[in-house]
Amino acid sequence: MSQPSVLAVVGVGLIGGSFAAALRRAGRVGRVLGVGRNAQSLQRAVDLGLIDEAVSAEEAARRADMIMLATPVGSLGAVLARMRPHLRAGTVLTDAGSTKAEVVEAARAALGDRLSCFVPGHPIAGAERTGPEAADALLYQGRTVVLTPLPENPPEALDAVRAAWQACGAAVIDMDADTHDRVLASVSHMPHLLSAVYMAQVAAAPDAAQRLALAGSGFRDFTRIAAGSAEMWRDIFLSNRPALLAELAEVRTMLDQAEAALRQGDGATLHDMLEHAASARRNWRKEPQ
Amino acid sequence: MSQPSVLAVVGVGLIGGSFAAALRRAGRVGRVLGVGRNAQSLQRAVDLGLIDEAVSAEEAARRADMIMLATPVGSLGAVLARMRPHLRAGTVLTDAGSTKAEVVEAARAALGDRLSCFVPGHPIAGAERTGPEAADALLYQGRTVVLTPLPENPPEALDAVRAAWQACGAAVIDMDADTHDRVLASVSHMPHLLSAVYMAQVAAAPDAAQRLALAGSGFRDFTRIAAGSAEMWRDIFLSNRPALLAELAEVRTMLDQAEAALRQGDGATLHDMLEHAASARRNWRKEPQ
Repeated sequence: MSQPSVLAVVGVGLIGGSFAAALRRAGRVGRVLGVGRNAQSLQRAVDLGLIDEAVSAEEAARRADMIMLATPVGSLGAVLARMRPHLRAGTVLTDAGSTKAEVVEAARAALGDRLSCFVPGHPIAGAERTGPEAADALLYQGRTVVLTPLPENPPEALDAVRAAWQACGAAVIDMDADTHDRVLASVSHMPHLLSAVYMAQVAAAPDAAQRLALAGSGFRDFTRIAAGSAEMWRDIFLSNRPALLAELAEVRTMLDQAEAALRQGDGATLHDMLEHAASARRNWRKEPQ
Repeated sequence: MSQPSVLAVVGVGLIGGSFAAALRRAGRVGRVLGVGRNAQSLQRAVDLGLIDEAVSAEEAARRADMIMLATPVGSLGAVLARMRPHLRAGTVLTDAGSTKAEVVEAARAALGDRLSCFVPGHPIAGAERTGPEAADALLYQGRTVVLTPLPENPPEALDAVRAAWQACGAAVIDMDADTHDRVLASVSHMPHLLSAVYMAQVAAAPDAAQRLALAGSGFRDFTRIAAGSAEMWRDIFLSNRPALLAELAEVRTMLDQAEAALRQGDGATLHDMLEHAASARRNWRKEPQ
C-alpha cells in the first residue's frame, strides 16, 4: 500500500493530534480530516494546523485512506458502526486504545465482515496533557507502539499501519491482544491502581494534612500518576478487568509474604524481597519517557 | 546554649557529612570530629574537609559540645553506651534516624540517667546517594526536620539542636515520637513497601523481560524508590513495625474496596476513588525535593 494521501483522525487530542502532526511532518499525508464531538476543539485543531477540515464520521469513512481512532474505547463501536457503510475498499483503520481485547470485540461487532481493515494498536506514550494544544509531532519519537493484528488483517493493512507509526519515529512490535492486555495490566494499570488506592487512603486519614506536610520526594514520585484523569483510568480498569484482577492476585500474594515477614520480624525474607526489587529496578534502563 | 564549638559526627556519610558541612558553612562549628568503623571512609571525610580528625566514640564524648548520631538505629545503643561514661555536662546529642520510638527506647536503655542530653530528630531528606562523597552543605536547605523531644530534655538542649538545624537551612517542627512514626509509616515507609512489593512481583513473573520492555514513564516514577538500599529499608521497616502494620491494614481496606468495585464493574465507585486520589494529589504542592 502506498503512503496514505488522506488521513482521518477521530479524536484530535494529544494522541490523535500528535499522530497527524508526526505524519504531516514526515510528508506522509496530503490532507488531514478531523472527526469529533466538540466543534470548538476541532476548530482549535484547524487553527493549530493539525487538521485541514472537520468532517463527520461518515464523510471521513468515504474520503480517508487511513483512519486513526483516537477515541475512548467506550465510543469506538458507535463510531465504527457509523463508518462501516461508507468505507472504501483498501481503507485502513487503526486505534490507539490502552487495552486491546475489548477494542477487538467492539470492532468485530461494529464492522462484521469489514473487520479485516481494522488493525488494533497502542502507542506506549502516556502524558498528562490533553486536547489539541498538547499535540506534538515528536511525541512518538523513540516510543514503542504495540500492534495486535487480527487473523483477518491482510498484510497490506498491517504494513500500512506499521509504516505510519515508523514514520512517526516509533518502534513497532506485534503481540496478540491478550498478551498485550496482560503485560499492560502489570506495568501500566497496576501502578496506577496502587498509587491511586494509596493516595486515596492517605487523603482519607483524619490527619491527612499533617501527613501531606511531611511527604517528601519518594511520596512525590510514587503518587505522580495518581493525579491522572479519573474518567480515563476508570475506563481502562473496567476495560481490562480480567487481566487486572488476575495481576492483582499476584501482587497480593507478594504483599502477603512481605507482611508476614514483617509481622514475624523476619529480616532475611524482607531483605531478599527488597534486594530482588532493588536489583531489578536498577537493571531496568531506559531513556526517560 | 551558645553555638557548638566542637561537633562530633558518628557516621560521616550523606546525612552526617551534610550536617557537618552545613554547620561549617554557617560558621557554627570550630572543630569537627568524625567517628566510624570504616577507616578509609573516615580518611575520605578528612580529605573532603568534612571532618578535621577521626576519633573514637569515647574521645568524641569527652571533647564534643554537640554529637550527631547519623548511624543505623541498630548500632545506636552500643555507641551511646560507649559514650555515656565520658559525656560532659552540657553536651547535647541528637540523631537522624528515620523512626523514633525505637531510637528513644535504645537511647533510654543506653544512657539511663543521662538521657536528658539526647534530643531525637529526623531530617526529611531522602537521597539515593551514600558515603562521604555524597555529603552536601546545601542538602537541608528548605527541608523539614522533625524533633521528637523527650520530657527529660532541658530547653537548652532542645534549643541547641533546633538552632543547629536552622543554621543548616531547615525548618524544624516538634512532634511526639509515636505521631512521627505513624506519619512516616504512611508517607515514607508505605510507598517504599508497596513499590518494592510491586517491583519484586513484576521481576518474578515468567515474562518479566517482556513486561519491563513495555514499561513507561508511570512505571518509572512509581518504582524509583524500589531501587533504594535493601539493608536500610529492611531496618526501617523492622524498626517501625507496629505503625507500618497498622497503616498497611488501612491501605488493604482501601484496596479491598477498589478491587470489589472493579470485580462488580462498579464504575461510579471506582471513579469516586480515583477522583478523590487525583484531587488530593493535584492539591499537594511542594517544591521538588
